[in-house]
Amino acid sequence: MSSTEQNLKIVSVEVRDIRFPTSLQADGSDAMHTDPDYSCAYVTIKLSSGLEGNGLTFTNGRGTEVVVQAVKSLSYLVVGQVVYDIYKNFSTFWRSLTSESQMRWIGPEKGVTHLAIAAIINALWDLWGKLLNKPVWRLLVDLDPEVLLSVIDFRYITNCVTKDEALQLLQQGQAGKEQRIQQLLTKGYPCYTTQAGWLGYPDEKIRELAQKYLDQGYTVFKVKVGKNLQDDIKRCKLLRDIIGYDRTLMVDANQVWEVQEAIEWMKHLAPFKPLWIEEPTSPDDVLGHAEIAKALKPYGIAVATGEMCCNRVLFKQFLQAQALEYCQIDSARIGGINEILSVYLMARKLGVKVCPHAGGVGLCEMVQHLQMWDFVALSGTSEGRVIEFVDQQHEHFVNPCIIKNAHYQAPTAAGYSTTMKPQSISAYEYPNGSEWQSLFAKGLFHDPRK
Amino acid sequence: MSSTEQNLKIVSVEVRDIRFPTSLQADGSDAMHTDPDYSCAYVTIKLSSGLEGNGLTFTNGRGTEVVVQAVKSLSYLVVGQVVYDIYKNFSTFWRSLTSESQMRWIGPEKGVTHLAIAAIINALWDLWGKLLNKPVWRLLVDLDPEVLLSVIDFRYITNCVTKDEALQLLQQGQAGKEQRIQQLLTKGYPCYTTQAGWLGYPDEKIRELAQKYLDQGYTVFKVKVGKNLQDDIKRCKLLRDIIGYDRTLMVDANQVWEVQEAIEWMKHLAPFKPLWIEEPTSPDDVLGHAEIAKALKPYGIAVATGEMCCNRVLFKQFLQAQALEYCQIDSARIGGINEILSVYLMARKLGVKVCPHAGGVGLCEMVQHLQMWDFVALSGTSEGRVIEFVDQQHEHFVNPCIIKNAHYQAPTAAGYSTTMKPQSISAYEYPNGSEWQSLFAKGLFHDPRK
Repeated sequence: MSSTEQNLKIVSVEVRDIRFPTSLQADGSDAMHTDPDYSCAYVTIKLSSGLEGNGLTFTNGRGTEVVVQAVKSLSYLVVGQVVYDIYKNFSTFWRSLTSESQMRWIGPEKGVTHLAIAAIINALWDLWGKLLNKPVWRLLVDLDPEVLLSVIDFRYITNCVTKDEALQLLQQGQAGKEQRIQQLLTKGYPCYTTQAGWLGYPDEKIRELAQKYLDQGYTVFKVKVGKNLQDDIKRCKLLRDIIGYDRTLMVDANQVWEVQEAIEWMKHLAPFKPLWIEEPTSPDDVLGHAEIAKALKPYGIAVATGEMCCNRVLFKQFLQAQALEYCQIDSARIGGINEILSVYLMARKLGVKVCPHAGGVGLCEMVQHLQMWDFVALSGTSEGRVIEFVDQQHEHFVNPCIIKNAHYQAPTAAGYSTTMKPQSISAYEYPNGSEWQSLFAKGLFHDPRK
Repeated sequence: MSSTEQNLKIVSVEVRDIRFPTSLQADGSDAMHTDPDYSCAYVTIKLSSGLEGNGLTFTNGRGTEVVVQAVKSLSYLVVGQVVYDIYKNFSTFWRSLTSESQMRWIGPEKGVTHLAIAAIINALWDLWGKLLNKPVWRLLVDLDPEVLLSVIDFRYITNCVTKDEALQLLQQGQAGKEQRIQQLLTKGYPCYTTQAGWLGYPDEKIRELAQKYLDQGYTVFKVKVGKNLQDDIKRCKLLRDIIGYDRTLMVDANQVWEVQEAIEWMKHLAPFKPLWIEEPTSPDDVLGHAEIAKALKPYGIAVATGEMCCNRVLFKQFLQAQALEYCQIDSARIGGINEILSVYLMARKLGVKVCPHAGGVGLCEMVQHLQMWDFVALSGTSEGRVIEFVDQQHEHFVNPCIIKNAHYQAPTAAGYSTTMKPQSISAYEYPNGSEWQSLFAKGLFHDPRK
């Protein structure tokens, strides 16, 4: 690396409120989120050389402006930094954001501030990939285990996994790495679809979509439940009639139930043999999930959760308490890649499978990198694991994820696949983008400036 | 009530960023928060009659602007409401804020959005008190148990306490109520001081302050620990030398330790007989606190936590797992009085003592109302319980809390004691207030607009 490159400084952090009017079609609707407008806080970090890294955190419409404000408030810690100094002491830099001495009070490490940090951190990884001309999964795979661990803040998790134990796990993961890289490049990583089972969809649409994805080679399907038991029974039956019992079905309640209610409700869905019940209750209720997991084990139903798990400390407890059997990391919620890596390490230590949450805006693009790293360099297997795939909002990305035969294909472009097309930004930036102007003019949405 | 009063509408929600430059004196400094500028997001809800309710959430300086943005984003749910319709269906209204279908994604029920909701909800209680011409503790005490329960959202806590069980607890609390009201009006409610033990204070200042509070009748003292073991030993010895061993000492680590580290560190402080160790580790780590509590029990040291506990679901688990012996509710962090009441009910059900966190800005003013309600109408006792008191920022309130002989005196003014003096607002509103202009001009703080 030249000394000029070594001294590259971050000259600006920009953040944009990007929203897509998905509520118009009930895409993404579930028992808790009835009218989502898939959105993101989109961060651009610019170097003195002109190179840019892009990162985002997924949001649901209203509230994106709050995350945008949090990014602005934190950006004083980023602007002016020598970017390679950040990568050299990445866990220290990460903690400078998550433990900003005054701002941590309004978290800490959860909610709006942590989402904002995720967007910033994700942009830094995209930038790192671009600087080294590698897709992020490959950057992660190529990092020496000791360097990889240096990006992780082990605060509050050493009673689950220590840095030394993590090093051993990563060193074990080195064996057979090249072979797995080849396998990944040839075949990709398996995924499942949630597309057929949104709660707002009529039967005919569900039937049509299930058949479509079946024809595309999908063997694993997920359906939303939790609003009305009779509807759920009908929807599960509908799906099973089409996909049969040789393929896999999961159900997802998006947090609507009480603990006891979850257990009772799921007993009624047990005949449809769901592999897991996802988010049966509050995403904060470790002990409640543990109770549900224990009660549903005799029915062959596992518990999955994690997409709204707020940080590594909660994940640690879910893992310690055997409150989940499938750990659903989200690429945009906890504090970016640095913290997500610590969750993978805890899951590996305790023998829990990671099956990432995706969908939304850019979640599929990002999370494929992480799961591919895990496959190549940590767990060393994709056995019993699968990444969620939802076919929405990919067209707005310069390098969208590519699915072939129900497998994510290994990204080849440098970075974290998070750069949006300029025309998408100018159309969907809220509230000034051209699409929003048109939606306001048609009276389909209220103009917040009026 | 006249029909005009019954139809009173909320015409505006205003929010201000109020900051005090406390970092200049290291007031409030601890192992985690080294340079706090005690602040708040200050909400004013105005009725068509002109009557105003004021509510706040405590913040620590930077980041207040993010909470302010969240209040603005949520206020569309408040403006235009008939205020008595809110009180008639308060739990439904509360859930409309905490589960706003798009904004819940950036929480849910934690961090910035939940702090913002606390400020709004607190303002509504202040307004309710003013409408009925009662201090909030008295309003709570006078509410029929069934009406009181109607303000609480029991979602996610029914496996700890059901509404029926809560009703029984409240009905039990009715016996002897009048006598306890008289006791409260005569004597007040006991408090302890944290004032002598801030981490940034030199020995001489600690000694002086300890003696001062001792002379004022205080028998319970708290000191900050966790930065350096030898300093902690010195500070505890200093305190014990002055207050003796007949009085009570507590220590507070403000989340700096790993689980195992907390246990080891506290063994070294055991000779000073601290009643409790407060916030030994991450405020999210239920299982970690349970482990610490178990390990320190033989040493006679209890675990206290709660001031940064993010919602009732976490509190539920802390209580269920016996992870705390003293439950430190905070009047500004979780979603306002409605949610705090549910924590009191769970604590009562499981036999755990509530000893509220206070200090900051307005926390003493607010929390006295809640603990007095508990004394009169729920637990029926102050045995082994005590409210924190810190003598800072009270001068900015129209009706500050009053302490006599180390007891909070029962508030008599209508409302929640949260109305600030107009001159304090105009001096400390950030960044335009006159005091801030002067601090910027002196170069003591950086003007964020430059």
